[in-house]
Amino acid sequence: MINKVDYQRIATEEAFITKDVLDGYMRLLQDSSFDDPGFRSLWGYFGTHQSPRARAINEALQSLGDLRLGHMDAAGIDHQVIGLTAPGVQVFDPATASSLAVDANDQLAEACRKHPTRYTGMAAVAPHDPINAPKEMERAVKKLGFRAVIINSHTLGHYLDEPQFAPVLEAAEALDVPIYLHPQTAPPSMIKPFVEAGLEGAIYGFACETGLHMLRVIVGGVFDRFPKLQFIIGHTGEALPYWLYRIEFMHGAAVRAQRYESMKPLKHPVGHYLRNNVYITSSGVAWQPAIEFCQKIIGVDRVMYAMDYPYQHVPEEVGFCDAMTIPDADKRAFFEGVARKVFKLNF
Amino acid sequence: MINKVDYQRIATEEAFITKDVLDGYMRLLQDSSFDDPGFRSLWGYFGTHQSPRARAINEALQSLGDLRLGHMDAAGIDHQVIGLTAPGVQVFDPATASSLAVDANDQLAEACRKHPTRYTGMAAVAPHDPINAPKEMERAVKKLGFRAVIINSHTLGHYLDEPQFAPVLEAAEALDVPIYLHPQTAPPSMIKPFVEAGLEGAIYGFACETGLHMLRVIVGGVFDRFPKLQFIIGHTGEALPYWLYRIEFMHGAAVRAQRYESMKPLKHPVGHYLRNNVYITSSGVAWQPAIEFCQKIIGVDRVMYAMDYPYQHVPEEVGFCDAMTIPDADKRAFFEGVARKVFKLNF
Repeated sequence: MINKVDYQRIATEEAFITKDVLDGYMRLLQDSSFDDPGFRSLWGYFGTHQSPRARAINEALQSLGDLRLGHMDAAGIDHQVIGLTAPGVQVFDPATASSLAVDANDQLAEACRKHPTRYTGMAAVAPHDPINAPKEMERAVKKLGFRAVIINSHTLGHYLDEPQFAPVLEAAEALDVPIYLHPQTAPPSMIKPFVEAGLEGAIYGFACETGLHMLRVIVGGVFDRFPKLQFIIGHTGEALPYWLYRIEFMHGAAVRAQRYESMKPLKHPVGHYLRNNVYITSSGVAWQPAIEFCQKIIGVDRVMYAMDYPYQHVPEEVGFCDAMTIPDADKRAFFEGVARKVFKLNF
Repeated sequence: MINKVDYQRIATEEAFITKDVLDGYMRLLQDSSFDDPGFRSLWGYFGTHQSPRARAINEALQSLGDLRLGHMDAAGIDHQVIGLTAPGVQVFDPATASSLAVDANDQLAEACRKHPTRYTGMAAVAPHDPINAPKEMERAVKKLGFRAVIINSHTLGHYLDEPQFAPVLEAAEALDVPIYLHPQTAPPSMIKPFVEAGLEGAIYGFACETGLHMLRVIVGGVFDRFPKLQFIIGHTGEALPYWLYRIEFMHGAAVRAQRYESMKPLKHPVGHYLRNNVYITSSGVAWQPAIEFCQKIIGVDRVMYAMDYPYQHVPEEVGFCDAMTIPDADKRAFFEGVARKVFKLNF
C-alpha cells in the first residue's frame, strides 16, 4: 500500500554492483595475503552467506533492470541515485581499480540511458590513482551524465584530507559535482574492538569511521582550500549534527591551545562547513527524530531522503517518512526538492 | 552572574586526580615500552603541555578543596559527583592499579566527609584485578559511602562484555550502585586514524570508543545476565540515542541472519536496555537540542546534568542549561531529581 503524495520520492544513496567487481571481491576473500578483517566480514557475508537476507541483497545489488524497478515500484520510489556499493573499487590495486571503475561507470550509464526518469548515476572512482581518477570523473560527468562521485570512505587506510587526494577533490569542485562519502568497514588499524563484537558494520562501526572521515576533511581544512566543494553523507549525517556542540567546543579549545601541530585554525567554525559544504541523507534512518534533528541543526535545504537499497529495502519505512509530522514544504524538500537541486535532476 | 533557580544544580561527571596517580601517568610517559598513543596524547597534553588550558585543568584536577569549591560557587554548582579522571588506574599493572584505587578512594572519601553537601564519590576500581576489584567496590560503597563506580572505558584494550569482568558487574549489581562508563582514549588497536588527525580525544574519538563499549555491553547480553545493573554514560549518551533506530534495525537483521557466532538474540530490543539499564548525562554538551533528544528518546527520568569539570569548566554553559525551553519539571529532573535518585543523595 503506497501513500498518494504530492512529491516524487527520490532515493539518494542506492547501491549496485557489477559482476566483475563482485568477482574481484570473491578473489580477495580467497587471497590470504589480503589482510582486512572488515572486508572479510562484509563480503564474506554479502558475498557467500546463505541467509535469505544476504542472498536477497546480493541478487538485488546485481540488478539494474526489472528486479530493481519492481522493488522501486512496490515501495513507491520514483527515482534512485545509484552508486557502486562499498568498498567500491578502493580495495584493488590502483590500475585494477581504475579499470573496474570505468567498466562499472559504463554499465551504470547504460542503465541510466535506458531509464532516464528512474536512475541517476554517481561515478565510481579510484582515489588512490590520482592521475586517472580526475580523468574518469570528467568522463563520467561530461560524457556519461553522472551527477556525483561516490567514495566509500577510506582507501586502504588513507583519508581524503591527506595531500595525495587533492587532485580528486579539485576535480570534484571544478566539475561542480558533490562527493558522496559512503561508509565502508574501518581499516585494520581501527577495527579490532568493533569486529570482535560484531559491531564493525552498519550497526555502528560504519558510523564511527565515516563520521571520522568527514570530520578529518573538515578540520583538515579541505573546505578552506576548496570552498565550493560539496560532500554528501548518509545515515542522518553520521551523527555529526548531534555532536556539533561538543566538536566545536573541543576544536576551539585544541586550536587555541595549539595542542596539535597538524590542527590549524579554520576560517569558520565546524558548523559552518556542515551547513555550507555538506548535504545529509536519511539512508538507513527512517526515523523522524533524527531526520528532524538534522533539518533543524543543518538546514531543511541540506537534508535528503535515501532508502539504502537494497541493504535496507523496507517498503514500510517509506510510509514512516511520508507520515512525518513536519511542515509539508519541508517534507517535499526532503523527498524531492533538495535532491533535484543537488543532483541537477531534470526529468 | 548566576541565575536564581528553584532547583539544585548537581553535576554528575566531575573529575579529580591524586598526586600518586598523576606521578604514575608521568612515569608511563617516560617509559618507552608503554606503547599507547592515546594515553601519550592525552597525558602528554594535560600532564606536561604549557598552554593555559592544560595548566588550569591540571591544577583543578588536583584540588578537592578551596579551588574546586570556589569554581563551583562561581558557576552555581551546588554539588559534584566526583570520580578519578580518565584513564583512572586502568593503565597500570593490576596490583599497582588496585593499590592506587584504594588510595584515591580514601582521599576522595575524606573530601566527601569534609564537604558532605558538596561532594559525592564514585569509586575508582581496577577491573583487571577481578579478585580485589569487588572487594574494593564493597569497601568504597559500604565503608566510604560512595554511590557509584567509575570505569574509564576499556582496560588495556579489553571491554566489560568480556567474561573476565563478570565479577565486577556482579558486584555493582549486588551493591546496587551504577557504573559510570567514562571515556578514555581508544586502545592502540583502534586509534590510528583518529590520532593522526588529532581527533582521538573529547572532540570525537572518546565518543566512538565509549559508545562502542556501551553497545558491546548491551549486545553482549550483559543486562540479560545482570538485569538490575545500571550504567551511566555521559556526553548525551555518546550518541547512542541518536543511533537507536539504525542499531535496532541492524541488530535485528544480523541476529535473524545468524551473521555472527557471537551475536545471540537478546531478551529485548536494544532500546529497552537504554531505557531501563542506562542513565545519560549531559557532560560536555550544554546544548538543548541534544539534551532534549535524550529526554524524548530515553526518558526524562534517565537524563542528568553534568559539567565535566574541570575539562569543560565554562560557567556560561550553566546558564545555557538554565535557559532551556523545556517544561520546568523536566528541568528540575535534569538538574537535580534524577541525580538524587540515581546516587541516593540525602544531603
